[in-house]
Amino acid sequence: MCGIVGVTGTDKSLSILIDGLKRLEYRGYDSAGVYVNDQQGHDYLVKRPGRIANLEAALGDEVHGLAGIGHTRWATHGEPNEANAHPQYSQDERFYLVHNGVIENYADLKKEYLSDVKFVSQTDTEVIVQLVDKFVVESGMTTEAALLKVLRLISPDSSYAFVLMDKEQPDTLFVAKNKSPLLVGIADGYNMVGSDAMSMIKETNTFMEIGDHELVIVKPDHVTVKDFDGNEIDRPTFKVDMDANAADKGTYPYYMLKEIDEQPAVMRKLVQEYFGDNDVAKIDEKMLKDMAEADHLYIVGAGTSYHAGLVGARIFEKLCGIPTSVHISSEFAYEQPLLSKKPFFIFLSQSGETADSREVLVNVNKHNWPSLTITNVDKSTLSREATYTELLYAGPEIAVASTKAYTAQIAVEAILAQALGVYMGKQAAKDFDVKHQLGLVANGMQSITDSKKKIEEIASRYLSKVPNAFYIGRGMDWSVSLEAALKLKEISYVQAEGFASGELKHGTIALIEDHTPVIAIITQDRTAGLTRSNLEETQARGASAITIVSRHLAQEDDTFILPDVDEVLTPLLSVIPAQLMAYYTSLGKGLDVDKPRNLAKSVTVQ
Amino acid sequence: MCGIVGVTGTDKSLSILIDGLKRLEYRGYDSAGVYVNDQQGHDYLVKRPGRIANLEAALGDEVHGLAGIGHTRWATHGEPNEANAHPQYSQDERFYLVHNGVIENYADLKKEYLSDVKFVSQTDTEVIVQLVDKFVVESGMTTEAALLKVLRLISPDSSYAFVLMDKEQPDTLFVAKNKSPLLVGIADGYNMVGSDAMSMIKETNTFMEIGDHELVIVKPDHVTVKDFDGNEIDRPTFKVDMDANAADKGTYPYYMLKEIDEQPAVMRKLVQEYFGDNDVAKIDEKMLKDMAEADHLYIVGAGTSYHAGLVGARIFEKLCGIPTSVHISSEFAYEQPLLSKKPFFIFLSQSGETADSREVLVNVNKHNWPSLTITNVDKSTLSREATYTELLYAGPEIAVASTKAYTAQIAVEAILAQALGVYMGKQAAKDFDVKHQLGLVANGMQSITDSKKKIEEIASRYLSKVPNAFYIGRGMDWSVSLEAALKLKEISYVQAEGFASGELKHGTIALIEDHTPVIAIITQDRTAGLTRSNLEETQARGASAITIVSRHLAQEDDTFILPDVDEVLTPLLSVIPAQLMAYYTSLGKGLDVDKPRNLAKSVTVQ
Repeated sequence: MCGIVGVTGTDKSLSILIDGLKRLEYRGYDSAGVYVNDQQGHDYLVKRPGRIANLEAALGDEVHGLAGIGHTRWATHGEPNEANAHPQYSQDERFYLVHNGVIENYADLKKEYLSDVKFVSQTDTEVIVQLVDKFVVESGMTTEAALLKVLRLISPDSSYAFVLMDKEQPDTLFVAKNKSPLLVGIADGYNMVGSDAMSMIKETNTFMEIGDHELVIVKPDHVTVKDFDGNEIDRPTFKVDMDANAADKGTYPYYMLKEIDEQPAVMRKLVQEYFGDNDVAKIDEKMLKDMAEADHLYIVGAGTSYHAGLVGARIFEKLCGIPTSVHISSEFAYEQPLLSKKPFFIFLSQSGETADSREVLVNVNKHNWPSLTITNVDKSTLSREATYTELLYAGPEIAVASTKAYTAQIAVEAILAQALGVYMGKQAAKDFDVKHQLGLVANGMQSITDSKKKIEEIASRYLSKVPNAFYIGRGMDWSVSLEAALKLKEISYVQAEGFASGELKHGTIALIEDHTPVIAIITQDRTAGLTRSNLEETQARGASAITIVSRHLAQEDDTFILPDVDEVLTPLLSVIPAQLMAYYTSLGKGLDVDKPRNLAKSVTVQ
Repeated sequence: MCGIVGVTGTDKSLSILIDGLKRLEYRGYDSAGVYVNDQQGHDYLVKRPGRIANLEAALGDEVHGLAGIGHTRWATHGEPNEANAHPQYSQDERFYLVHNGVIENYADLKKEYLSDVKFVSQTDTEVIVQLVDKFVVESGMTTEAALLKVLRLISPDSSYAFVLMDKEQPDTLFVAKNKSPLLVGIADGYNMVGSDAMSMIKETNTFMEIGDHELVIVKPDHVTVKDFDGNEIDRPTFKVDMDANAADKGTYPYYMLKEIDEQPAVMRKLVQEYFGDNDVAKIDEKMLKDMAEADHLYIVGAGTSYHAGLVGARIFEKLCGIPTSVHISSEFAYEQPLLSKKPFFIFLSQSGETADSREVLVNVNKHNWPSLTITNVDKSTLSREATYTELLYAGPEIAVASTKAYTAQIAVEAILAQALGVYMGKQAAKDFDVKHQLGLVANGMQSITDSKKKIEEIASRYLSKVPNAFYIGRGMDWSVSLEAALKLKEISYVQAEGFASGELKHGTIALIEDHTPVIAIITQDRTAGLTRSNLEETQARGASAITIVSRHLAQEDDTFILPDVDEVLTPLLSVIPAQLMAYYTSLGKGLDVDKPRNLAKSVTVQ
C-alpha cells in the first residue's frame, strides 16, 4: 500500500519523481526514496524514514539523472526504517525495484532460491529484486526474461505494482502489475509510470492502462506491452480531464477543515450535476433497468465507504423496496455469503482504487453480474472495471480522514434510490423530493459549519483529555455513530466506538467510568425515546452525556441541535458535528490532522 | 433491568426476600432494598447502594414481617444511590413499589399529574407510586382501581414488572407486568412473586404465568388474575424441574472459571441429549420441515448471543444452503430490514428473558412466522412464546460474562444445521459428522483448559497494563474476535475491539502504538496468510503481535496453538484462550470477575 512513480528520458527526472511522490503521499508516508541514473555511469539511491519532505531535504545537489524511480511507503512488512524503504536493490547493486503490494509467498521464495544471499531489509520486495538478479547473473537470462520468470513464481494471491531498473539498461523501466494500480503517462519526449493519474498530471494528460499479468517496457520514446507469453499487445492511450491545481488548501490550516466546509457546495454541485434544470435525476436508464430487475442489492465498501453504504442500504430499502445488504469488502472477497439469484453490486470507494473492493469486483465480473461504482475519481480502476459509474463530484479529497466523500456518497445513494424507486413506480420514492431536500441539507450543513465555535467548545470540554468515548444511536443514527467514532479514532487517537444504543448494556457498558463521553445521535422519531433511555443508563454510571439532536426532537438540555430535514437524510447533517469534534480534538492535541499516524488515504493492499 | 420478589403469608418473609434477591443478583447489583409489614402496625423499609450483602448487613434485628417486597437494581434512571433504590414509596408513606423496566412517558405523567408532589428520587418508578397514591387519596378510588388507571396511562412502549403494597391492605401484593418477566410462585400456605423461577425454587416448584396487561392480586391463600376490564381469568399452574443447588461454585474462586472448565462436559452433555445412542440428532421433524421451507433464516440475539449467531449463520449457510442473516435484537425491533417471503426466526438467549429479543418475538408472533428459541432456561419467556425450543443443557450460568452458554449455543446451532442439512438432502451436511466432531471439540477444549498456566502468562505479559487491545481475524475468526473482545471489555475493562482483519487499515490502525496488543485468530485455511499480513502491518507500527492458531496452520513463532478440529467448529476452541485471557487479566487487576461493574446477567429492559 504505497505510491510509486517512474520516469525516463528527461533531465527533469528527479523533480518529476519528487513532485509525483508528493501527490502520492496520500497512499502512505512511512518512508520514501528515489533512485536516479544519469546514463553516464552515475547513479544515486536516497531513502529516508518519514515523509517526502525528509527525503527532499536529504537530496544533495549532486543527485541528478535522466531516468529514475521513486516510492512512498505504507509499511506492510518490517518497521518503517531506512533499510526497509524502497527502492530495494540486489546485493550487487545492479537492480533497483519499487513495489506497491504484498508478495504472499515471499518467505517460500527466499527459502527455495536465496538461502545464500545476504538481505539488508525485512521486506518482501527485496526477495523479488534479489531473485531477478540471481536469474540474470547466475543463469545468464536477459533482464526481461528473468523478471518474467520471477512474476510466474509469485503466488496468484499476491499483489504488486513493480517498476524495475537495471543499471546496465539505464533508460528502461521494466513494469508489471497484479491487483495494485499502475498507469503509464505519455509525455512529450519522455515517458512515466505512476500509481495514479494525479501523480503525472503536471507533465501530461495522456495515459495508457496496464492490465494484470502484462509486462510493460517503458523507454523514453516507446512503450511496449506484452503478455506473459511474449506476445505484443496493442494498447490505445486515453486522455483525462483533471486540474492539477484543484487540490490547494488556500487559507485553511488543514485540508480536512476545508473539506468539511466544502460539503454544502458539494451538495449543490450534486444537485446541479444530477438534475440540472430537471426535476428528475439524469441516470442511465439501462442501469436503472438492471437494478430494478435485481432481487437484492449488495453494497460493498471499506472504512468510511462501508459506513456510507450502511446508510445507503436503509435508503434503498425504504424508497425502492429491494432488500439491500452492506458488506465489508475484505470479508466479502473471501467469505462471500450465499447470494440471491439476481444480484446487483454497488461499490463505494472515494479513490476508486481500494484493493479489497477490487478483489470483490474481479469475482463479480467473472460471473457477469451487473455492477456500479460510486467514486470520486473518474477512470479509476473500480470505475473502469464496473458495468456503470456514478461520480461524487466532490473535488479532490486530500485529508486522510474522509468527510465530503462520505456525505457525497450518501447523497448520490439517495439520488439513485429515488430515481430507481420512481422507475419502479414506488410511492415512497415519488413522495420524496430529493432535489429539494438536498437543497435543505446544503443549507443545514452551512448552519452547522457556521457553529464551529460551539463545536470546538464541546470537543475541548468533553473529548480533549479522555482515552475513550462512545457514539450511540439506533437505526440511521447507529450507522452514523460508526462513522462518527471512526473520525475520532483516525485523527485524534481516542478509542471511540459506535454502538447500537440498545446493545451497549449487553456488555460494553462495563467500560463506562466517571466522565466517559457518551454521545447520542437522535434524529429518528420512532427511537428517540429509547436512545435517551440508553443514554440515561450510561449517565447513571457516571458518563458525560452529550446529545446531537434534530430540532423537532430537541429537549432543554440537549448539547447540539441539528436543523430538521427529511428523516432519511439526517445522516448528512448529524455527521458534521462529529467530523468537527474529531477535527478540534485532534487540533487541540497538536496532532497532524491531515496525515494521522499509520494511515494512508487510499488502501491498495488487502 | 432489575430483579424483584414479593411474598405474603409467612413469618419467614424477610429471609425469603433476601434469599430470592441473592438469586436475582445476576439481574443487576447497583442497589437493593426491601419493605416488610408485620400486619400489626409495624413496617420497615431498608435500602442500600451496592450488593445484596450491603442490604443484609444493614437489617436490624427488629426488621420482620408477614409480607414484603424486595428489589435488586440495575440503574436506568438516576445514579445508584439510596434514594434511587427500590422500593419507591408515596409521599404519605402508604404505598411501596418495586419495578423492573422503563416507563417511557414518566416525565409527561409527572408534569401532567404530579406538579404539586415532592419527589425524593430521580426514578421513573417513584412517579408511578406517587400517581397511585394521588388517585387513591384525592379521588377516593380503591387501590386496585387506582393501579389499573395508572397502568392505562403508561405508554405502550414502556416495560414493567410491578409489585405494589398498600399499608392499609398489608397482606396483599398488587402485581402487573408488560414485557418484563414475572412469575407467581404457589407455596404451602403462602404465595410469592419473582422475576424468575430460580428466585423462588427453595420454597416451591409450582408456578403460575402472568401475561402482559393483566392485574394479579396475590394473597396468602389465593391468587386472582384479571384482565384490564376486570374479568377474572382462570390460570392453571405448572411445575418446573430445577435443582436449587446446581449453582454452587464449589472450590473455584469464581463462577466464571468453573463455567469455562465445564465447557468440555457441556459438549458431551449436548451429544448425549441430542444424539443418545443414535447417529442422527433427535430434532422435532415438524420444526425441520418449517425451517426447510423457509427461504431465509433470521437469527436474533444481543451481546454474546448475537456473536454466537454470527458463527451459527455461517454454519447454516454452509451445511443447509439457506441464506442466513444475524441481527442485533434492539435494532431489529425498531428498524426491521425488508424480510424475505418465508422467514424463519431463531432467537438466541441464555436466560430466555432478554427484553430486546422478546420485543422482536412479539412482532414475529403477530405475523404468525415460525420461530425457535435456543436457550438455557426451559419455560423462560422466549421459550414459552416461540413456536419451538431447543435447550443448551449448559447448567446454570452465574458469572455475568457468558462462556459456556456461548459455546453451547454454537454447538446446538451446528447440531441443528447438520440435522436440517441432512433433512434437506445436502451433501455438505451428510459429510459432516457433527456428533463425532463435537467429541473431538470436547477433547480439544479440555487440552486448552489444561493449559491455564500458559494463558495466564500471555495475559500477564501482554494485557495486564494496557488500556486497549485488538482481536483480529477473517470470516469465522472475525466472528470469534468480536466475542473475544467483548469478554476482555466486560470483566477486565480493557477497551478491546474485534475487527475484520482486512478492515483495520481503513482507519482504526491509527490507534496502534508501541505495545498495543493485537491478537490474531487464525483457524481458516483460505484466509490464514491474509490475516498474518494484516498482523504484520500492525507489528510494523509497534504492536505486540499475539497469535491463536490451529495446529495445521501454525508457524514457529505462534503464541498459542489450538488442536485441529473441523473448520466450521473452530470457534468452539479459539474462544477459550480468549475467555481465559479475559479471566486472568481481570483477576490480575483484582477485579470482581463474576460481577463486573455496571452490568447485569440478564438484560430485561430495552
